[in-house]
Amino acid sequence: MSEDNETGTSADLTELAKRRGFFTQSAGAYGGVSGFYTFGPQGASLKDNIENSWRDRFTLQEGNMEIDAPTVMPEPVFEASGHLDGFDDMLVECPSCGESHRADHIVEDNTEYEEAEGLGPDRVGQIIEEYELVCPTCGTGLGGRAIEDFSLMFETNIGPGSSSSGYLRPETAQGIFVEFPQLKEYARNRLPFGVTQIGRAYRNEISPRKSLLRVREFTQAELELFVDPEDGDGPDLDSVADVVAPFYGVEQQEAEDGEPLEITVGEAHERGLVADPWIAYYLGAGAEWYRSIGVDMDRFRFRQHLSGERAHYAADCWDAEADVSGPGVEPDWIELAGFAYRSDYDLSKHDEYSDEDYTVFRQYDEPVTVERPTVDPDMSALGPAFGGAAGDVADALAELAAEDPEAFREARSASDRSSGDGEKPRDGDAGEDGSVVVDVDGESYEVPVEQTGFAVEEVTESGEHIVPHVVEPSLGIDRALYTVLDHCYREDEVDGEERTFLELPAEVAPTTVGVFPLMDRDGLSERAQEVAADLREQGLSVAYDDSGAIGRRYRRQDEVGTPFCVTVDYATIGEAEDDSEGEPSEAQSASEPSSGEQPREGTVTVRERDTTAQKRIATEDLPETLVALRDGDAAFSEM
Amino acid sequence: MSEDNETGTSADLTELAKRRGFFTQSAGAYGGVSGFYTFGPQGASLKDNIENSWRDRFTLQEGNMEIDAPTVMPEPVFEASGHLDGFDDMLVECPSCGESHRADHIVEDNTEYEEAEGLGPDRVGQIIEEYELVCPTCGTGLGGRAIEDFSLMFETNIGPGSSSSGYLRPETAQGIFVEFPQLKEYARNRLPFGVTQIGRAYRNEISPRKSLLRVREFTQAELELFVDPEDGDGPDLDSVADVVAPFYGVEQQEAEDGEPLEITVGEAHERGLVADPWIAYYLGAGAEWYRSIGVDMDRFRFRQHLSGERAHYAADCWDAEADVSGPGVEPDWIELAGFAYRSDYDLSKHDEYSDEDYTVFRQYDEPVTVERPTVDPDMSALGPAFGGAAGDVADALAELAAEDPEAFREARSASDRSSGDGEKPRDGDAGEDGSVVVDVDGESYEVPVEQTGFAVEEVTESGEHIVPHVVEPSLGIDRALYTVLDHCYREDEVDGEERTFLELPAEVAPTTVGVFPLMDRDGLSERAQEVAADLREQGLSVAYDDSGAIGRRYRRQDEVGTPFCVTVDYATIGEAEDDSEGEPSEAQSASEPSSGEQPREGTVTVRERDTTAQKRIATEDLPETLVALRDGDAAFSEM
Repeated sequence: MSEDNETGTSADLTELAKRRGFFTQSAGAYGGVSGFYTFGPQGASLKDNIENSWRDRFTLQEGNMEIDAPTVMPEPVFEASGHLDGFDDMLVECPSCGESHRADHIVEDNTEYEEAEGLGPDRVGQIIEEYELVCPTCGTGLGGRAIEDFSLMFETNIGPGSSSSGYLRPETAQGIFVEFPQLKEYARNRLPFGVTQIGRAYRNEISPRKSLLRVREFTQAELELFVDPEDGDGPDLDSVADVVAPFYGVEQQEAEDGEPLEITVGEAHERGLVADPWIAYYLGAGAEWYRSIGVDMDRFRFRQHLSGERAHYAADCWDAEADVSGPGVEPDWIELAGFAYRSDYDLSKHDEYSDEDYTVFRQYDEPVTVERPTVDPDMSALGPAFGGAAGDVADALAELAAEDPEAFREARSASDRSSGDGEKPRDGDAGEDGSVVVDVDGESYEVPVEQTGFAVEEVTESGEHIVPHVVEPSLGIDRALYTVLDHCYREDEVDGEERTFLELPAEVAPTTVGVFPLMDRDGLSERAQEVAADLREQGLSVAYDDSGAIGRRYRRQDEVGTPFCVTVDYATIGEAEDDSEGEPSEAQSASEPSSGEQPREGTVTVRERDTTAQKRIATEDLPETLVALRDGDAAFSEM
Repeated sequence: MSEDNETGTSADLTELAKRRGFFTQSAGAYGGVSGFYTFGPQGASLKDNIENSWRDRFTLQEGNMEIDAPTVMPEPVFEASGHLDGFDDMLVECPSCGESHRADHIVEDNTEYEEAEGLGPDRVGQIIEEYELVCPTCGTGLGGRAIEDFSLMFETNIGPGSSSSGYLRPETAQGIFVEFPQLKEYARNRLPFGVTQIGRAYRNEISPRKSLLRVREFTQAELELFVDPEDGDGPDLDSVADVVAPFYGVEQQEAEDGEPLEITVGEAHERGLVADPWIAYYLGAGAEWYRSIGVDMDRFRFRQHLSGERAHYAADCWDAEADVSGPGVEPDWIELAGFAYRSDYDLSKHDEYSDEDYTVFRQYDEPVTVERPTVDPDMSALGPAFGGAAGDVADALAELAAEDPEAFREARSASDRSSGDGEKPRDGDAGEDGSVVVDVDGESYEVPVEQTGFAVEEVTESGEHIVPHVVEPSLGIDRALYTVLDHCYREDEVDGEERTFLELPAEVAPTTVGVFPLMDRDGLSERAQEVAADLREQGLSVAYDDSGAIGRRYRRQDEVGTPFCVTVDYATIGEAEDDSEGEPSEAQSASEPSSGEQPREGTVTVRERDTTAQKRIATEDLPETLVALRDGDAAFSEM
């Protein structure tokens, strides 16, 4: 149940995350369960804001379609997708304490091997033996223990009886792929089109670890773009061509002392480093989006998959990575997102395994005339000749005509010749005396060509059916949230006191504005409640707080990243100020207000989180001012 | 796999739902799985809008906290909640075809019994026998078949090995209850406070049916309000006191020909029909909210649970119900939401089963001085006397002192007397010669009272620990969505053609605005794309459509409930109009624009769904106009 790898900032963050309601291990009252986290009020709001920001950018702005599929899916879907057979981790069980571990992690943590998963279970078992590796829990040697494939899918049973297995989806993508036959109708069969989904996904990890970073239940946001690899509109690459990011390509990774290239998306594409224009586009849009939610671009990079990491069907794949190490230690790069060119793998699999049609009709620029060989076997001859096999023979003739029409042509000329002269027919499919030969279940059947009804038609085709290719930007919401908290964590000093705050962008901050009555008397609370209600009516997320000194209330909001605080004081309600109380100041002592303004009647103090600067704003202008500040349409310093 | 009970409007709705991308049974390519639905682009957007509307009303506006807990939860949580033992349906399996059925449904469908679930499995078995009920699938008699308890929870296994059972949560509520010890800290231990959650819940139904209405995976929105039953702020009942709704109380249900009372929330509360003020408040807020998302209030009612329906711990419970029958048939009332006063049941259970503290400290108005009996046993005497049992004896003495201090007082006076006179001690806890007697594991131990260190302290207490009560409005998002589609479904005639449209409120409509170029030439498409991009930038949900006649494009948007359509024509781009094209009209023929206005340069046509009226609006005013129309801040008829 313990959290490992928690040091420095990370430990502070985990403590703050629990204390201030971002996230904590679930069901702590019952000892908790590894790999399951509950987002508290601040975390749930931050997560929701991140999801909505992604939805706005990658669904609404792009004109894509979003769907919402079940988290429990039936077995045939994962037979087709390959998850049922191949979605495993290597498990080794300690013979002494019975604890289960990831065998590849034990190898990576204790040897020079870096990508042990790719080595396969046999080799990993050998390495454990060679290096005499031991159980991380109890120290017992693991040499000679079996390395098992452990399925990462959670299995359950649907309905009564035990005949219908269901699985918690390991990715949201399958919910999109499996519905493609319907989705293409919604897109009116025009490529490219994109479908998104935000939702839960599950991996039954052997050893969950690193807080939110390796969990058993998480939220994904995936975009599946369906493209015609040879045709169709490309992305608006110009719109992101100037975005600069570190590109850590295969070449840079394999070079000694290779460093990521700090170049624009446009240059990365022109150089061929990011070959596919859609991948390049999404990398640019992705970098901009991560920046917008608070990821520090100095601790961010794009890393290309090495050939060993990539699935066999993926032509190219880039990860977005973030460094979430504490200060002064080695960078700890974690995967935030993957951007993969998946070819036609996903749709082809479902096309093969199901009875539905996963193709799209590609219209040719000009109709094309092609020759199409056909047969029309004379069943009144085949029936008596071949009995029960006649139907299969007819099918085999149709297949042969499509694959090797020459066999029929040669048989026909042999037949013509044999009726004319005595030349010997050729060997092979063209049998004796102008016949063709087909195989059915290992038997050869010879059919006179004139009984096959062979003909070649000229057909004009306006297009063809193709299986679309898939470009997939896929990201983890929980990891984005963790990274944003890590990158926005700040410590400074205000009025001689240490302060912890989260420099979250106003767009994603869980609470946009804290509203405080200066004192809980003289009608200040009632007025402050009204102000809070007005702000909520504008759709702002408001925290009302009337307990403790103003300075403490500021600190509470600082810690959860609330960008603005509003204090209702005597000037707000137009009454003579109680002399014993000054303007709200950062410290508990009544120092001068940092704005230096004279409080005007009907105004409130607005205080900015990052600078702690204060300004007085007319109460009536407050809702629209704060909406503008949240949306980035106004700057606090210029007010 | 088939959908039963689909007739009239309902069948039309299900067909439209699939064709236009609202919802359809999942994984249809593999034959589908009963009880699992995928929301297509329109449905996912409508669902998201309904969720956000609920969040705005019941989280943000109320100042409640929202959390986001895992869908997989460990077994001990459901041991405490009672779901592990009691969350079952009655299953009967056909001996002939092997099909499983809900035994109580078979009884309800074929006898006069209406609430068979409450009768228990034995009685249901008897009724099946008495009435000679048969398998609905194959007609074989079911008399004498065992009625089994079938758990409705989906079970899975967490991690390697089989020791750790997890369950897909049957309700989102437990994710809130179990974290109460942490949540009360976020609320700084002040009651009342409310916590919400929107998320997936699961019920492994024996026979899913009625489209979205009885499914195995669904989305709940739940609010758990934690209150002190004797104290604390009440709701702002005045704010909803004037809301009128049909209240179908126990009395009205039990009266012959009883009809719901059409009265205000305020009156329902004053009459004592809805006794709890919080329940009354949420009924009012709930009715207003359902109306706002498109539920027809003429097909809506609140129905109080009969005493047999209510859980034993629930003091009162009301359901919101909607009629989703087709026109001209018997009303088919379905449950949309439950509003329950759950007493301290939920938190008491977790307090009892876990080691955490589920109480909140209730401060008294005035400190109270109470007597508290204590013991301080003399272990140097008890040790030699009782050996290994001495510790348990000391604990038993402390218990006895709390429960029956008189025993010590009497023993003491007996002791005083026996040292003075020779009176006989009383029987019972006061033993011979001024001793007290305690039982430990069935043995009696007699302890001289002077060795117990018995004393009575006067203690001043400032408050006490109480287990908060829970008021729970709990609703199903999928059922709300289904009802909204059903209640907003319209058929009319426009320009002599039949039209189907959804009269969805603009706030929840999946798409707010359709944008069409009149023609796909002369730069109209490019201008229309710019208009669409501008609208998207304002956060509007936009559908761009350039295919087919304008009339057909209107119909497509009508069918998915898009409240406004914008057409970009020659006037928009300031060019002479192509004479062959008129203004966009409803029919394909070029009739006069219904607005009758002269097209001005730089304007577009905005067309309203419900009236099909058209107006010309300056392109530059378009984004803010449409935002105002969507948010209800402007009316189309007054523009």
